[in-house]
Amino acid sequence: MRLQSYFKNNIYANRGMTLEEDINQTNEYYLHQDIALVYKKPTPIQVVQVEYPKNRIREAYFHEPSTLDYNGVYRGKYLEFDAKETQSKTSFPLSNIHVHQMKHMKKVIYFGGITFLIVRFSLLNLTYLIPGSDVIDFESTYHRKSIPLDYFKQHCFLIDLKYSPRLDYIKIVDKIINKKEVER
Amino acid sequence: MRLQSYFKNNIYANRGMTLEEDINQTNEYYLHQDIALVYKKPTPIQVVQVEYPKNRIREAYFHEPSTLDYNGVYRGKYLEFDAKETQSKTSFPLSNIHVHQMKHMKKVIYFGGITFLIVRFSLLNLTYLIPGSDVIDFESTYHRKSIPLDYFKQHCFLIDLKYSPRLDYIKIVDKIINKKEVER
Repeated sequence: MRLQSYFKNNIYANRGMTLEEDINQTNEYYLHQDIALVYKKPTPIQVVQVEYPKNRIREAYFHEPSTLDYNGVYRGKYLEFDAKETQSKTSFPLSNIHVHQMKHMKKVIYFGGITFLIVRFSLLNLTYLIPGSDVIDFESTYHRKSIPLDYFKQHCFLIDLKYSPRLDYIKIVDKIINKKEVER
Repeated sequence: MRLQSYFKNNIYANRGMTLEEDINQTNEYYLHQDIALVYKKPTPIQVVQVEYPKNRIREAYFHEPSTLDYNGVYRGKYLEFDAKETQSKTSFPLSNIHVHQMKHMKKVIYFGGITFLIVRFSLLNLTYLIPGSDVIDFESTYHRKSIPLDYFKQHCFLIDLKYSPRLDYIKIVDKIINKKEVER
């Protein structure tokens, strides 16, 4: 049984799912286990031409996202976050975040929501959760172009890759909520 | 000045905006006044064929929504709601709500979020906010096919149509949040 579990974990851990697939699997797990309700938002698409009566779209364009990709509800709180992968081994470039997304994170914080990024250093197999306020500080307060890996190691939350749920980020959200409630 | 205000109110009140336009205007107002962050979700579209390098979508289809149209954050809480119009003068037919939307409202409530419908009786110029739990009770507990106008009048929240914000629903959300906090 332990051996079976070992292989299962290793097969899945090495199967090379994308970060997005890992998060989608995790969100499905949370939904079915009655833990949280988190969805990937539909990609915004501008529809130009529709063919009737089949309602077939014949011309449309993708829009650049102005919000983060995932949002939902956990313990009554509003969550919104995004998943970002980088090939860098030393830092996470802030150019990965659109200007509108940065503004949007500030608004979510202002309105009392919980916002963060899940950042994967793909070549290092390391995945971290970084609170939105940290990302904003790097960009707006310190005018940095990237966040060093060392900062993630020292101040952010490492998320281990497991069989199921793949990326158990909600435990970290718990810590963030509890910290906020203590600070009140 | 009072006359100007009178005409302004009347011109706008009678301009015949759709319920969706009224809510979008209200949400923009809330955003600019730093009151709440509420968005209409993008329509889910299944993309079948994309033409490169222009990224022009040449074949795609609309999906039936399985969640509600609007979500956002207010005082840290998760909100999700939908806007429904009916031509009936006596009741709101529950056939306006897809099966998946009904299930989704139950989930939002389970996870501690705030969910409701904004229902407009178009021919009567009456717009109400009805909590999701009431809608679910009518459908699942009492197996009704519609909610009588009288129920709205006696138990729901009338939202007056104004110049700006057009439909000031957030005051009612305040009442719902405060009631929940008292009940804890």
